[in-house]
Amino acid sequence: MKRRTLIKTAAVAAAVTAASAFPKPALSQNRMKWRLITTWPKNLPGLGTGAQYFADQVTKCTGGRITVQLFASGEVVPAFESIDAVGSGTVEMGHGAPYYWKGKAPAAQFVSNIPFGFTALEYNAWYHYGGGSALCDELYRDQLGCKFLVCGNTGPQHGGWSKKKISTVDDYKGLKMRMPGIPAEVLTRMGATVVNLPGSEVSAALAAGTIDAVEWNNPYGEATMGFWRHAKYYLTPGWHEPGTVLEIFINSKKWDGLPDDLKAIVEQCAFSTNQVMLCEFQARSGPVLENFLKERGTILNTLSDEILMKLGTVTGEVLTELAAKDKMSGKVLKSMLKFRSHQKQYTFISDGEFIRARNLPFKFPM
Amino acid sequence: MKRRTLIKTAAVAAAVTAASAFPKPALSQNRMKWRLITTWPKNLPGLGTGAQYFADQVTKCTGGRITVQLFASGEVVPAFESIDAVGSGTVEMGHGAPYYWKGKAPAAQFVSNIPFGFTALEYNAWYHYGGGSALCDELYRDQLGCKFLVCGNTGPQHGGWSKKKISTVDDYKGLKMRMPGIPAEVLTRMGATVVNLPGSEVSAALAAGTIDAVEWNNPYGEATMGFWRHAKYYLTPGWHEPGTVLEIFINSKKWDGLPDDLKAIVEQCAFSTNQVMLCEFQARSGPVLENFLKERGTILNTLSDEILMKLGTVTGEVLTELAAKDKMSGKVLKSMLKFRSHQKQYTFISDGEFIRARNLPFKFPM
Repeated sequence: MKRRTLIKTAAVAAAVTAASAFPKPALSQNRMKWRLITTWPKNLPGLGTGAQYFADQVTKCTGGRITVQLFASGEVVPAFESIDAVGSGTVEMGHGAPYYWKGKAPAAQFVSNIPFGFTALEYNAWYHYGGGSALCDELYRDQLGCKFLVCGNTGPQHGGWSKKKISTVDDYKGLKMRMPGIPAEVLTRMGATVVNLPGSEVSAALAAGTIDAVEWNNPYGEATMGFWRHAKYYLTPGWHEPGTVLEIFINSKKWDGLPDDLKAIVEQCAFSTNQVMLCEFQARSGPVLENFLKERGTILNTLSDEILMKLGTVTGEVLTELAAKDKMSGKVLKSMLKFRSHQKQYTFISDGEFIRARNLPFKFPM
Repeated sequence: MKRRTLIKTAAVAAAVTAASAFPKPALSQNRMKWRLITTWPKNLPGLGTGAQYFADQVTKCTGGRITVQLFASGEVVPAFESIDAVGSGTVEMGHGAPYYWKGKAPAAQFVSNIPFGFTALEYNAWYHYGGGSALCDELYRDQLGCKFLVCGNTGPQHGGWSKKKISTVDDYKGLKMRMPGIPAEVLTRMGATVVNLPGSEVSAALAAGTIDAVEWNNPYGEATMGFWRHAKYYLTPGWHEPGTVLEIFINSKKWDGLPDDLKAIVEQCAFSTNQVMLCEFQARSGPVLENFLKERGTILNTLSDEILMKLGTVTGEVLTELAAKDKMSGKVLKSMLKFRSHQKQYTFISDGEFIRARNLPFKFPM
C-alpha cells in the first residue's frame, strides 16, 4: 500500500516535471540525483551526522530538484580517493577535511586551519570577510577541479591523551605519540617519536603500550574510543588543531551548470551546516568531558607556558618552511596569518576574558 | 532598453508560472512578496547588513518565489512596534533583538542571552542541541504570534567606555552609566546611577559629562560613535552581554502556510545568516580595537576578579528574582542555566586555554 502510493506519487511528479515549461538550464536538471560521498562512517557522531544534515537540507530546500544521497567512506570509493572521484566528475560532491588532499594540493593543509591558528569563529570570519572564500575557491578549482564550500568544524581539539604526565619540554623527548600532519613535524622537532595510525588501531596500540600518547579530536568525537582506559592525562589546550575545518567539494563543471537558485541553496545549506555541526561537537563535548573527569579518573594536564612557547616557536618555523615550498601555500598562509594578527588580541580581550571571568567561583543559580 | 528587457522577462516568467502544473499549496504563493521590517537603520554595520544578507539569500534561494524586501526601522512601523505588526499579520516578518519584546513576553529577555551566560557558540549549541529552539518557538508562538528563528549574534560585547578608571567595586558607586536591561539592574545594585538613552543621544551626553560611562556593543558597532573622544577607558570583559542574539520573527499563520521547501529555505538562510553576521562583527572588530588602542589613546581597563565576582553574584540574584515572576521565564532560564553548567568548564579548558596560549609572546611568522 505504502509502496504503491509512493510509486504513484513519483510517477505524477515525474510527469509534472516533464510538462513544466519553467526556465532551467536543462530538463534533466529539474530532478537530479546527486551523490554525496563522505570520508566518514555513516552517522559518525559529529562528522557523519553533520554531513547527513547537509544532504537532508539540500533535498528539502530544493523540493527534491536535487535529491542528495549520502554514502559512507568506502561505499563508492575509498575515503582518500574522494577528491579524485569528484574532481573527475564521477561523483557530484563530497564531504571531507581539506588536509586529506595535501598530496595533490599542498595548500589544502592550511585550508584546514593551522596549529596556533584560528578559533572556529575566526576561521569563518576569515572565510566570509577576510578573503578566505576566494582563496579556497581558487585553490580547489585550479588544483582539484572542485568548488569549495566551508561546511563544518570540529571546534577546538585537545592536546591528546597521555600515559605520562607532560610537565616540561623534556617530557616530549622519546614520547611515542600518534599525531598526523603539521603538528607531527612539530612534535618530531621536540624530540617525540611520531606514529601515524588509522583510527581503528589507535586504541589497541595505546592499550598495548606501543604508543604512550594519542591525539584524536575532542571529547564527543572520542566518547566511544575508550582512550581514558589506557591513558589518564588529558592534555590541553589543543594548540595543534584549534578549530579544524570540514568542507563540501563539488565538481566544478556540475557546480557551474547549476542555476543560480540551486547554487544559493547549496551555499546556504553548507554555511548553516558549518555552524550546526560545530554546535553538535560543542553541546556534546561538555558533558562527555565532565564524565571523564568525574567518573573515569581522567586528570587534566594543562601544558605549561614554557611548553606552549616552545611549541609555538617550532610551529612558526615549520609553517615558514612549508609556505616556501609551494606558491599557493605561501599565498594562503600569508592571508591567514595577516588576518590572525588582527584577531589575536581582540579574541583574547573579548571571548577570552569573558570565558575566564565566567569561570570565577561566584555564586550563581545553577 | 534594460527596463524593457526586464519587463519582458518578468511577463514571460509570470506566464510560465501561471501555466505550470507543479504542485503547490496555492497559486498566489508561487510568487510572493514578503516584507522584512527591521529594528535597525538600513545597512547599519553588522545588524543592518546582516538582515540584508538574509533578505537577499531568501530571494535568491527561492528563485523569487519569495521576494523579500527589507525596510529600515520606522519605514513601515516604529522599531519597537515591529513585533505587533508581524504578530498581527500586517507584515510577514521582522528582524530584531528578543529583549525588545520583554514587555509583552518577559522571557524574551532571556532568549537574547543573559549576563555571564553563553558565548555565541554556546548559545547556538543550546538552540540546536539543548532544547533552545523548541522553547523559543513555544514562547514566540504563544505570546507573540510568531515563529522564531535565531538569526545573528553580535559576539561578545565589551564592558563599556568610562571616563574614570574602574579599579574596585567602590568605583561603581555614583557612576552615571548608560546601560539597558538586566545589567542595568545589576549596576544599580552596585551603586551606579543608570541612565537609559537612545543611540542618537549617547555620544553627546558623554561629551557633556551628563554621563560618566556608556555601554554600547563592540568595536565594529561603535566604530563611528566617537566614544573614544570622551572616555578613554575601554572596559573588558563584556560580562553583561557575552553574545547577544538576533532573530527573525515570522507571523505564525504565514509561516504555517508555507510549503515545506520554503520553510526549509527560510530556516537555512536564517541559520547561515546567524553565523555570517557574527563573522562580520568578529572580522571588523579586531582592526577597529587596534586602532583605538594604537592611534586613539584608548586604555584597556580589565575588570578585576573582585569586581567580576561581585557582578557575577549580583547577576545571579537578579536572574533568580526575574525567573520567579513569570512561569515561562523560569522555564527558559532553567534550560539555559542547566546547559551552561555543562559548558562552562569545557569552554574554559578548550577555547579559553587555546586563546590564552596563543597570546603568549612566542616568535611566529606574522
